[in-house]
Amino acid sequence: MGMVGGGPSAFIGEVHRMAARLDDRIELVCGAFSSDPYVSVSFGKELGLEEARCYGDYQEMIQKERMLPEGKRMDFISIVTPNHLHYAPAKLALDNGFHVLSDKPATLNLDEAVSLKEAVNKSGLIYGLTHNYTGYPMVKEARHLIRSGKLGKIRKVVAEYPQGWLSTKLEDQGHKQALWRADPQKAGLGGSLGDIGTHAENLTEYITGLGIDELFADVSTLVEGRALDDDTNILVRFNNGARGVFYCSQVSLGEENALAIRIYGTKASIEWKQMEPNTLLLKYLDKPTEIFRTGHQYLSESAQKASRIPPGHPEGFIGGFANLYSNFAKAVSDFKTGNYKEIGEYDFPTITDAVRGMQFIETTIESHKKKTWTKMNNLEL
Amino acid sequence: MGMVGGGPSAFIGEVHRMAARLDDRIELVCGAFSSDPYVSVSFGKELGLEEARCYGDYQEMIQKERMLPEGKRMDFISIVTPNHLHYAPAKLALDNGFHVLSDKPATLNLDEAVSLKEAVNKSGLIYGLTHNYTGYPMVKEARHLIRSGKLGKIRKVVAEYPQGWLSTKLEDQGHKQALWRADPQKAGLGGSLGDIGTHAENLTEYITGLGIDELFADVSTLVEGRALDDDTNILVRFNNGARGVFYCSQVSLGEENALAIRIYGTKASIEWKQMEPNTLLLKYLDKPTEIFRTGHQYLSESAQKASRIPPGHPEGFIGGFANLYSNFAKAVSDFKTGNYKEIGEYDFPTITDAVRGMQFIETTIESHKKKTWTKMNNLEL
Amino acid sequence: MGMVGGGPSAFIGEVHRMAARLDDRIELVCGAFSSDPYVSVSFGKELGLEEARCYGDYQEMIQKERMLPEGKRMDFISIVTPNHLHYAPAKLALDNGFHVLSDKPATLNLDEAVSLKEAVNKSGLIYGLTHNYTGYPMVKEARHLIRSGKLGKIRKVVAEYPQGWLSTKLEDQGHKQALWRADPQKAGLGGSLGDIGTHAENLTEYITGLGIDELFADVSTLVEGRALDDDTNILVRFNNGARGVFYCSQVSLGEENALAIRIYGTKASIEWKQMEPNTLLLKYLDKPTEIFRTGHQYLSESAQKASRIPPGHPEGFIGGFANLYSNFAKAVSDFKTGNYKEIGEYDFPTITDAVRGMQFIETTIESHKKKTWTKMNNLEL
Amino acid sequence: MGMVGGGPSAFIGEVHRMAARLDDRIELVCGAFSSDPYVSVSFGKELGLEEARCYGDYQEMIQKERMLPEGKRMDFISIVTPNHLHYAPAKLALDNGFHVLSDKPATLNLDEAVSLKEAVNKSGLIYGLTHNYTGYPMVKEARHLIRSGKLGKIRKVVAEYPQGWLSTKLEDQGHKQALWRADPQKAGLGGSLGDIGTHAENLTEYITGLGIDELFADVSTLVEGRALDDDTNILVRFNNGARGVFYCSQVSLGEENALAIRIYGTKASIEWKQMEPNTLLLKYLDKPTEIFRTGHQYLSESAQKASRIPPGHPEGFIGGFANLYSNFAKAVSDFKTGNYKEIGEYDFPTITDAVRGMQFIETTIESHKKKTWTKMNNLEL
Repeated sequence: MGMVGGGPSAFIGEVHRMAARLDDRIELVCGAFSSDPYVSVSFGKELGLEEARCYGDYQEMIQKERMLPEGKRMDFISIVTPNHLHYAPAKLALDNGFHVLSDKPATLNLDEAVSLKEAVNKSGLIYGLTHNYTGYPMVKEARHLIRSGKLGKIRKVVAEYPQGWLSTKLEDQGHKQALWRADPQKAGLGGSLGDIGTHAENLTEYITGLGIDELFADVSTLVEGRALDDDTNILVRFNNGARGVFYCSQVSLGEENALAIRIYGTKASIEWKQMEPNTLLLKYLDKPTEIFRTGHQYLSESAQKASRIPPGHPEGFIGGFANLYSNFAKAVSDFKTGNYKEIGEYDFPTITDAVRGMQFIETTIESHKKKTWTKMNNLEL
Repeated sequence: MGMVGGGPSAFIGEVHRMAARLDDRIELVCGAFSSDPYVSVSFGKELGLEEARCYGDYQEMIQKERMLPEGKRMDFISIVTPNHLHYAPAKLALDNGFHVLSDKPATLNLDEAVSLKEAVNKSGLIYGLTHNYTGYPMVKEARHLIRSGKLGKIRKVVAEYPQGWLSTKLEDQGHKQALWRADPQKAGLGGSLGDIGTHAENLTEYITGLGIDELFADVSTLVEGRALDDDTNILVRFNNGARGVFYCSQVSLGEENALAIRIYGTKASIEWKQMEPNTLLLKYLDKPTEIFRTGHQYLSESAQKASRIPPGHPEGFIGGFANLYSNFAKAVSDFKTGNYKEIGEYDFPTITDAVRGMQFIETTIESHKKKTWTKMNNLEL
Repeated sequence: MGMVGGGPSAFIGEVHRMAARLDDRIELVCGAFSSDPYVSVSFGKELGLEEARCYGDYQEMIQKERMLPEGKRMDFISIVTPNHLHYAPAKLALDNGFHVLSDKPATLNLDEAVSLKEAVNKSGLIYGLTHNYTGYPMVKEARHLIRSGKLGKIRKVVAEYPQGWLSTKLEDQGHKQALWRADPQKAGLGGSLGDIGTHAENLTEYITGLGIDELFADVSTLVEGRALDDDTNILVRFNNGARGVFYCSQVSLGEENALAIRIYGTKASIEWKQMEPNTLLLKYLDKPTEIFRTGHQYLSESAQKASRIPPGHPEGFIGGFANLYSNFAKAVSDFKTGNYKEIGEYDFPTITDAVRGMQFIETTIESHKKKTWTKMNNLEL
Repeated sequence: MGMVGGGPSAFIGEVHRMAARLDDRIELVCGAFSSDPYVSVSFGKELGLEEARCYGDYQEMIQKERMLPEGKRMDFISIVTPNHLHYAPAKLALDNGFHVLSDKPATLNLDEAVSLKEAVNKSGLIYGLTHNYTGYPMVKEARHLIRSGKLGKIRKVVAEYPQGWLSTKLEDQGHKQALWRADPQKAGLGGSLGDIGTHAENLTEYITGLGIDELFADVSTLVEGRALDDDTNILVRFNNGARGVFYCSQVSLGEENALAIRIYGTKASIEWKQMEPNTLLLKYLDKPTEIFRTGHQYLSESAQKASRIPPGHPEGFIGGFANLYSNFAKAVSDFKTGNYKEIGEYDFPTITDAVRGMQFIETTIESHKKKTWTKMNNLEL
């Protein structure tokens, strides 16, 4: 793969590289790591790449890789830049025959996402989105339990993602991660909403299979002077009549990455917490709650396959992230060998999730401004 | 004390009696325990009361007790009936010179609550409301920490109370507790909202000292055919600008009494869970979270006084409940001896909480119906 | 009941009184609360007793109560004094026709315990011992699960009771609780061993039904200058071949009352922690762990009867303690009415547990001194 | 690196390869993966190795790699075979100029370990041992807290490692992992003792810096017919006078890998659990327990360096394991460039730990057989 972004100070770039590496199915062969061509090249060399494939920018990378013989050139690009730099490289890559794996949210706004979807469809290539929390084994087990009818009809979902790291105005202190996230030109309409709120939305849809019908939002900026939201609370109604509460916050001081989801059905209920990812609770009305744990043979095939080690040896964030990379790599490999199946067979978020995430952001902002329940227009995509 | 309600099949009546008994400050001397006079009398005798003071109804009880000499007659009534039978005995007791300790919500509707407030004011007597969760030691510690400035300015509150016991239509199966709770004539406007949503509201106000400015609610009935709400989700804005999420549910299948509150400030944050009541988490931005535990000498005086045993021996629901009874008993005792201070000195919920609770219910219902942010009219009471 | 000990500064006396009061089956009618007759009488009056029944010492109490007419005189004595003052009042009470409920350990040494057993047998009266942890609902469930064969054959038991409160030499600072516990004349052979080690032993035997066959002990005094052990670790072999690890400590700094037991069988295993007493884990080889919780209808009758409130409202230490008092009261009541069954029917620790506890202490000390595996001589008692 | 063992059915081989890969500092260049040369070669090819460097056995590998030019040949071997196949390849590698990273326990018996130590000393090469639990960030923090005096003098250590996977006689069912572990010819003197008991010992010594002075052991085989111990309980006395309890078990049915350590000092205490590795509790006598969490800036440098991602994104078993590989790789790299420092600077277990582990096993077995407290002879090594 070739990487766009992920230079020296970018935490998420290294995460993507570790995730790509873990299962030994993917090799980083080139990259355009920084907006500064000099930094990009020197960083690529530090990573052990051939100097010739350390590019000054993504345009150059795509152009030059395209010229390389098949077998040698990269198969796909991994985009790990700030949000405003997702669309252009993705589009260019697709137009030049490269598959794309992109960080989330997919684009700066919904228009870009819709346009990207057209490009994906036209290209016939593979597009993946790193909503990484769907990669955890117990998230897959949760989805399996619901698909297999264990919960009955779903009545209620509570999905929350509180963080505390933006409790002070870090963006004024030269903090690079905070800087672009608090800049509407780079982050888009949503602050905490785009950064982590979309994880709550995507995780809910991945596990439950439900779609959001309408929502009512309270989008707030609680640190004075910040340009984007840092706390967003949403009431949700799903397309099957279920009710939901979503909230995300980056000013919940003292919280780390407390993403959690509780799903209540007519027969059973589920609770999962990202910070204790190897445990899934299955609750009943009239018998003891069961603790499902990663790695056991009583789990579904999808959960077992997402696990690398036996029960009781904790599997973490990088392992979950790597599952997306490995599933994407499998799809790319099948594509190359002419064995490609439907994208839904490969278990990673796709361009559909990409568009839906942008719809979610824009619907939330619109509801907040209009102070009304607002339909999430599920375009036939 | 004399008890109104709390007959043979009423779980909460026995809880009140245990709570009253625990600290040996209160003696049950009479009661009108059931709407059936025969049951009332025989049950009173079973409890060991003098037959003469086992009354057929509360009117008789108040009338006859009033005739007894001071020192012998009851000092106050404890009302543990369904909601529609709170107002009348409370009013009659006050009019006849008896203090009142009432279960929550205070009345069937806001009008009754306002009228009751007038009766309390006119009588000069003591009125207490058993929002029992405020009795836990660590709830008192949470309040203390906030009052002492430890959290800074509060930015966000999440208060939730999911239960699962009404996940099926129990009221059709002759379940007595479910029956009146699902009947608008007996429960009032709110189902889960009145029964447990008011706990979330009261607990939040008790701990934070904040008032609700406005709210937006989604009030749902998720079990088909039920006459009142069983799932209610609310976005809240407080009078200091803080944001909040409240929700209560009685169809969160598999949940017991998972009341929990998280309060995020500019300096520190707090987390408390009713099902692990002896633990309070104090979270910081840049140092380790601290685990405060019941019974330690590092706690505030109010938390220490609310505790009966040394750290590590769990104190439970009945102990917390008993703290309300004992504080109320102290107020009554001071009243009798002419040492009565301001009601705020005694640390139990009062007629102000009673009215506010009813306002909360009516505002929530109104917001839901009108689909708008709705002010919670903080009448000067 | 009449109480021996439990005066103004004694924490455990008030616990006993609350436990006796909770279920309204027992009335405190007299007491000899302190070794100082003046204190005893004034304290009794403070508790609301008739002055005539506030006695200067237990001898007087037993003598005078015996003179009172049946129906008026106390039914049993509750002994809550330091260990060296358990035997004499128990013996005297039995000899004068009163039942006895005693704090643990039963006596100062094994000889006293054996002698007391003879007195109990001779008298035909009821003797109970407040190994209170057996009163918790989930401890009863654990016993039920094992009795019903759910665990198969038991292979391993780990029972631990770390506390930290004696991590400094409190007994030199006038701390009353520490003072007698660190004095061999008052506490007996065991320090932490007698105070809390016996709880581990008794709890294990209560739940598993196993007896200790032999043990090897390391008995230590880790705070310099202390007269008795404050940390004791024991390897255990049970009479069915199972292995065990017991340990107790009062210098495990930072621990509160972290009594915990894990029992491993050939089919399933159990884990219970006193500080989270309403939860019991049932573990399997090849399916999810189950979380049993107090108050549910799926529990055994014995666990349900030990519970006062619905699931999710925590039941605590006092409730568990009260179960012993109430079961004892039931036995006494049946005794009075001629309906007394076998003592084993009433579910409280008896003189057999009393003797076994003293054997455990003496065997542990002997093993430590001799540095050998030492048989716990299970006298035919 | 070149790998010895770790073929198709070996779980631990793949763990080592993931650990080696994670930080991109180590490349697997050759291997002898199986005792069957054909399997070894085909497996190596599957892993993407050059065919020429997929060797039939470790002798061939060492011989042929030695012939390769520097820069091309492997730098070290990683040994992931069953215990009886640790010594020979380690010795041969050292004798031929290759560094060694070996799985634990280091050898089949103490004699081999002592001989290996001589070989290490003679060669001047680097020897590392994958006691992987020392690689977790919070284990490093625990060591730091103790070294910096935060706990005062250590009084008590409880280290436990219960597993349940050998609760049935898996070795009779063709289970490959169970098979060699239950065979004294392949596993050595210890069953559970060697496999996981040594982890408890090594972890304790790593964190506390204490050495074991003497111990008393009860070594049991609880599954009938098994050839080695599956449950071992040990009382320990440390060289500073502290007391300890160690136990390991592979028949604690329902346990996964519940390695846990509690260390009690005169000023503070520590608790860490492998299954929740990102949390470390620091307990005090008179103030709230603190929760240390991976990734925070308040941690020591050693803990921060052992962490790859921000707080709240769980780091797991593979990350901890990878820290050993990366630290070992750093030492090898420094060795090659002439910058090698003392081995103690690199933070991975060494030949000293290797010998001590074997001493621990033999001392435990001896104590059990002799039924006496047995000194752990801390040879001057």
